[in-house]
Amino acid sequence: MTDQARVKLKPGDTIGIVGGGQLGRMLAMAAARLGLRCRVFSPDPDSPAFDVVANATCAEYADVEALELFASDVDVITYEFENVPAASAMILAARRSVLPDRQILETTQDRLIEKDFVTKLGIQTADYADVSSPQTLRAAIARIGLPAVLKTRRFGYDGKGQTLIRAGDDPDRVWEDLGTKSAILEAFVPFEREISVIAARSADGNVECFDVTENEHRDHILKVSRVPAAISDALAAQARDIARRIADALDYVGVLAVELFVVPGDGGSKILVNEVAPRVHNSGHWTLDGASISQFEQHIRAIAGWQLGKPVRYGDVTMTNLIGDEINSYADWLGVPGATVHLYGKGAPRPGRKMGHVTQVAPAGQK
Amino acid sequence: MTDQARVKLKPGDTIGIVGGGQLGRMLAMAAARLGLRCRVFSPDPDSPAFDVVANATCAEYADVEALELFASDVDVITYEFENVPAASAMILAARRSVLPDRQILETTQDRLIEKDFVTKLGIQTADYADVSSPQTLRAAIARIGLPAVLKTRRFGYDGKGQTLIRAGDDPDRVWEDLGTKSAILEAFVPFEREISVIAARSADGNVECFDVTENEHRDHILKVSRVPAAISDALAAQARDIARRIADALDYVGVLAVELFVVPGDGGSKILVNEVAPRVHNSGHWTLDGASISQFEQHIRAIAGWQLGKPVRYGDVTMTNLIGDEINSYADWLGVPGATVHLYGKGAPRPGRKMGHVTQVAPAGQK
Repeated sequence: MTDQARVKLKPGDTIGIVGGGQLGRMLAMAAARLGLRCRVFSPDPDSPAFDVVANATCAEYADVEALELFASDVDVITYEFENVPAASAMILAARRSVLPDRQILETTQDRLIEKDFVTKLGIQTADYADVSSPQTLRAAIARIGLPAVLKTRRFGYDGKGQTLIRAGDDPDRVWEDLGTKSAILEAFVPFEREISVIAARSADGNVECFDVTENEHRDHILKVSRVPAAISDALAAQARDIARRIADALDYVGVLAVELFVVPGDGGSKILVNEVAPRVHNSGHWTLDGASISQFEQHIRAIAGWQLGKPVRYGDVTMTNLIGDEINSYADWLGVPGATVHLYGKGAPRPGRKMGHVTQVAPAGQK
Repeated sequence: MTDQARVKLKPGDTIGIVGGGQLGRMLAMAAARLGLRCRVFSPDPDSPAFDVVANATCAEYADVEALELFASDVDVITYEFENVPAASAMILAARRSVLPDRQILETTQDRLIEKDFVTKLGIQTADYADVSSPQTLRAAIARIGLPAVLKTRRFGYDGKGQTLIRAGDDPDRVWEDLGTKSAILEAFVPFEREISVIAARSADGNVECFDVTENEHRDHILKVSRVPAAISDALAAQARDIARRIADALDYVGVLAVELFVVPGDGGSKILVNEVAPRVHNSGHWTLDGASISQFEQHIRAIAGWQLGKPVRYGDVTMTNLIGDEINSYADWLGVPGATVHLYGKGAPRPGRKMGHVTQVAPAGQK
């Protein structure tokens, strides 16, 4: 039995959550519903997750003493975002189980390592190449072709740290503008649609996937999710199987999200893995209202050493993000019959900032 | 415009909740979902609601200074139970709006005043009589007949403070055993079923009722709620209309519950009001999972001065309370497909103590 399989929380025990954003907030609320307490660690005194827990640690990720005290006050530790500094994760893991295992972060924090990992499982991705100089970029373009997307290997999200290279662009200038020494060039994928699978894996290796979700981005930020995705049952089964294989290969405990592209293929549509997020995911927010058990609860159950739930979906679900100034429309949404409004308790609505979301559930098949 | 109509909270504002039990806990979680903060006031350091808020006041209800500080730290005040001491409510109301209005408590804290109030609206209840001595008890029995139920006028809940009088019982002894000076004798109602209506009323007088719920008690404690109730549409409309008239007559702001009996009548079944609870109610817990908006959210919206939601029900819902030792079965419930488990974060499972509940939603009409 591995260390992670030995964590078994009782109601009243305390989960440590690293990161204080809306994902941490919704994780803490899911834990409370199950009678579990949470302590949140975040350097930001205005962390939305601080509002929903009795105990919080406001300290820098480099604050070793604060990390150690935090770890000693909780029974298991998880995180709400994939960019937890490796050193912080190591300090925490020396004192308490950190789930999902911190070594998984090393895979998913680096686009190249992640793509190599997925490819080795025999799962298709867009063509990609390691790029570390103008010379290697030129070679990668020669192999992959244009258009293609150049991305930093680390710390990218919501379209940050990436740029599209079109035919005629100057590779030297693009390389200089990205300002990194380690990048990855990915073939531009002319996808039919973007989908995602939210999978939960328990400590004893059981995997439960939510129904495949279809996602619509605007300015690289998720705007709308719809479930079920408008794809064939066979393709949906294939997507869930990919998520399961990735979770198994990582010996994962908790919830992960796999983002995929549906692309035209010779024998009909096929799917490519775009990204793996080792955490609860915006495209799974619909589960809070549209299913008997949410992604947040599945994650909490998994890291608590509890059995996963068997979620039942209540209908066809649409989740709409409220981004930036869109939050000012919350009062209009309050009056929409059947709409469930979630506001994250954030301060100023900066452009691109996820401020809340709205869920709408329609009877299945009647949309 | 009355004082209560002027309360208008913005996201980020703070609601004060008096009482720290599971109702306060679920109110605080509903407020958080809307981006509102809560501060909980409770004398019990183990209050379940303390776990889900960043700020709490642990003090006695007689602690004037603590009440005043609490009031000054919040933007509006509400309560999770109807037995808030009148003096405490007055101190709070001198500093902040208390919603529902504290004077409503004077009606609903006293079974006799409540029954008189309902009767004056032209709404039927079981026959009842004021009882303050063995002599008045004998006179009441002579008028109402036996069996009948003798109840203390104040501080009764979950069957506490009441006793059934059968033919042959000694009224003097029953009176002595109840140990009160002010009671009410109610005719025993041979009901077909027990139902309840959860109604929300906004500051501007809009009323939204949830679908009528059918309730099954065990040892005077709610065990199972089912919605929709197995009654005619006409009777359901009548039940909702009664709740609306009571809410309007009280100039109520927030959620109230009306418990009713369905009894055989000359022209078919009819309904009698049993009790009015000026708060969110156990028989409305199904709304947390079975509808797009819960009773807790409706209450928060109403006291925040926001518009009420238009809840849509996701199917036929069953809510099962986990009472006392039944909480030990939570792990079994975790594995039931479609079951949503709520644990209240309470300590020891004393007999009769409400420890959690489980919701199950089935496609409408397929139960």
